Amino acid sequence: MDAKLKPRVVPVIMSGGAGTRLWPLSTEAAPKQFHALASKLSMIQETALRVLPNESVSFLPPIVICAEAHGELAATQLHASGVEPWAVVLEPYARNTAAVAAVAARLSQELNPQALTLLLPADHVISDSAAFSGAVAAASAAAVERIVTFGVTPASPETGYGYIRLGPEMDDAVFEVSAFTEKPARDTAAEYVASGEYLWNSGIFLFTPAVMLREIHAFRPDVHRHALAALDSGGRDGLFIRLDPQEFAACPADSIDFAVMEQTQAAAVSPFDGGWADLGSWSELWRLGAASEADNVVKGEVVLVDSSGCLVFAEDRPVAAMELRDLIVVSSKAGVIVLPRHRAQDVKTMVEQLKARSALASPEGC
Amino acid sequence: MDAKLKPRVVPVIMSGGAGTRLWPLSTEAAPKQFHALASKLSMIQETALRVLPNESVSFLPPIVICAEAHGELAATQLHASGVEPWAVVLEPYARNTAAVAAVAARLSQELNPQALTLLLPADHVISDSAAFSGAVAAASAAAVERIVTFGVTPASPETGYGYIRLGPEMDDAVFEVSAFTEKPARDTAAEYVASGEYLWNSGIFLFTPAVMLREIHAFRPDVHRHALAALDSGGRDGLFIRLDPQEFAACPADSIDFAVMEQTQAAAVSPFDGGWADLGSWSELWRLGAASEADNVVKGEVVLVDSSGCLVFAEDRPVAAMELRDLIVVSSKAGVIVLPRHRAQDVKTMVEQLKARSALASPEGC
Repeated sequence: MDAKLKPRVVPVIMSGGAGTRLWPLSTEAAPKQFHALASKLSMIQETALRVLPNESVSFLPPIVICAEAHGELAATQLHASGVEPWAVVLEPYARNTAAVAAVAARLSQELNPQALTLLLPADHVISDSAAFSGAVAAASAAAVERIVTFGVTPASPETGYGYIRLGPEMDDAVFEVSAFTEKPARDTAAEYVASGEYLWNSGIFLFTPAVMLREIHAFRPDVHRHALAALDSGGRDGLFIRLDPQEFAACPADSIDFAVMEQTQAAAVSPFDGGWADLGSWSELWRLGAASEADNVVKGEVVLVDSSGCLVFAEDRPVAAMELRDLIVVSSKAGVIVLPRHRAQDVKTMVEQLKARSALASPEGC
Repeated sequence: MDAKLKPRVVPVIMSGGAGTRLWPLSTEAAPKQFHALASKLSMIQETALRVLPNESVSFLPPIVICAEAHGELAATQLHASGVEPWAVVLEPYARNTAAVAAVAARLSQELNPQALTLLLPADHVISDSAAFSGAVAAASAAAVERIVTFGVTPASPETGYGYIRLGPEMDDAVFEVSAFTEKPARDTAAEYVASGEYLWNSGIFLFTPAVMLREIHAFRPDVHRHALAALDSGGRDGLFIRLDPQEFAACPADSIDFAVMEQTQAAAVSPFDGGWADLGSWSELWRLGAASEADNVVKGEVVLVDSSGCLVFAEDRPVAAMELRDLIVVSSKAGVIVLPRHRAQDVKTMVEQLKARSALASPEGC
């Protein structure tokens, strides 16, 4: 491809997640995007390396948006993987992705007013980086007027993902959006996959800052006003951009999907096949590893004997396990979890029980 | 009981074990006797508290014999539980219990030539301390001429213990030894228990130093010579008594059972019921707890849901587990183990595999 034809894109990495579904690895102090889950690098490192300039896209230095508590960690990890972000935006509070999109669009304009913005989560797995950049390049023409979301050809009837129903093809490899759907039940998911009309909603967006800001202003003027005011009243301190706490506190928390994508006439979807996964539970990590290797998926210093269908993950200490069937065993600095794969969605509940237990225990001291 | 009739006894606590069957809690750096397994105190602390002066026995301050590497740990733990030992003997090498018995007898003579010596392992559970002291007092008359070992009425056909076949009663509550047996197979153990003629061999001994030294000299003059020479050529440094490394290295390693008890005419056995257990595996710890409480045995910061027959042990960080059957889950600073209760004896093998794995991995760095 001629270098002159490559799109210029500002990647904005959203690192706001603080989920507990991957406890004990993912914790409030270091959520999953800061851990090496699917490879030897952390997920945010993999994400940053995925948006280096390449033969399909002229990526500019990335902008990272994360919780205040994670700013140093994000900067350190990116630096360690050889990526120097243009800025790390520190959120004083979590205000969901609509506010992030507004901040991202405005900063992207500042960095390069002619570039597109690629808004992408820090905690997704994409095994084929070249395919991903190819999809971004292919969607770039449509993204001048539209907010393009990337839809993943479903490999299985996942119930943990939202789906997008394809509308008419509007351009080479870009389609109208017929509908966004919530996470479906198993049967519905199976129908979606069989129909060939649905894609997984990846939560990755390509757009021009002007269009994004226009649409946010149209549907959520309150988000537009407070998010941009938080940026304007904030300040830059070297690498770090601080948002004004009062303005950002006043900003409603809403997702960009709900606030804009499900309302706007400017949505479009670009199908993409690149080994995408949103690792929302330990069983998904097992599935990702098991598909390509063996029945057991092990990571770290692990001895696993006479076992099948297991995920055994040792972060900092050795784990020895024997004669287990379809179990998840994860050991990290924060704790240990052991449960059947089919109960992986219950990790969150168990972490809440642990917290309640600690809260009860702490007044007594130790 | 009249105080003047109470036997004077020097307790010698053998803390030489370095077993890996209770990995990851028991490690070379801190074997099981230094951990809180059956109670909130470590096993060596429980052992030291068991031999405080009481209404049955005038116990003198204890002597501890342990590996050089564990001397400070032993002294610190005893001090923390309010027990000040008379001495802590540091073994430059492990030389099994015959050498320990010789050193124990000679030091006991030095501390009080008129007292009996009680040689007892640091890593046994005895739930009824009063019964134990009562058994020591009851055996003290016979122990003037005999080496009395304590035999435990078997509660189940354990295959992990040695057994003693009772001979004729020779004195109130003391019997001749008809035979010492090795660890039996399951069927044999069941026959032993059914017969009523067998006791578990506790490995606890009561004797006068003179008789013990005479018998060791008679059956193992080499052990006698080198063990005592190691003591004579060693030196005392405050609380710590150091054995001469060259002499102790030259001392043959043999157990007191094999070297003396199975040979001597001076053996006797005193039956004892006091909730004794030698926690040789995680399944034994489960049994000990499950008998008195529930089907699951948990210790530490544990959330256990929809599970049965499990032992879950959290030393230093929380463990969450769900929908498990008859599993052992132990988490410590050293690592994590997960395996079925019926495979508890395989822990040792798994630890060897982990070590081999680490040894292979270490040349590569990091």
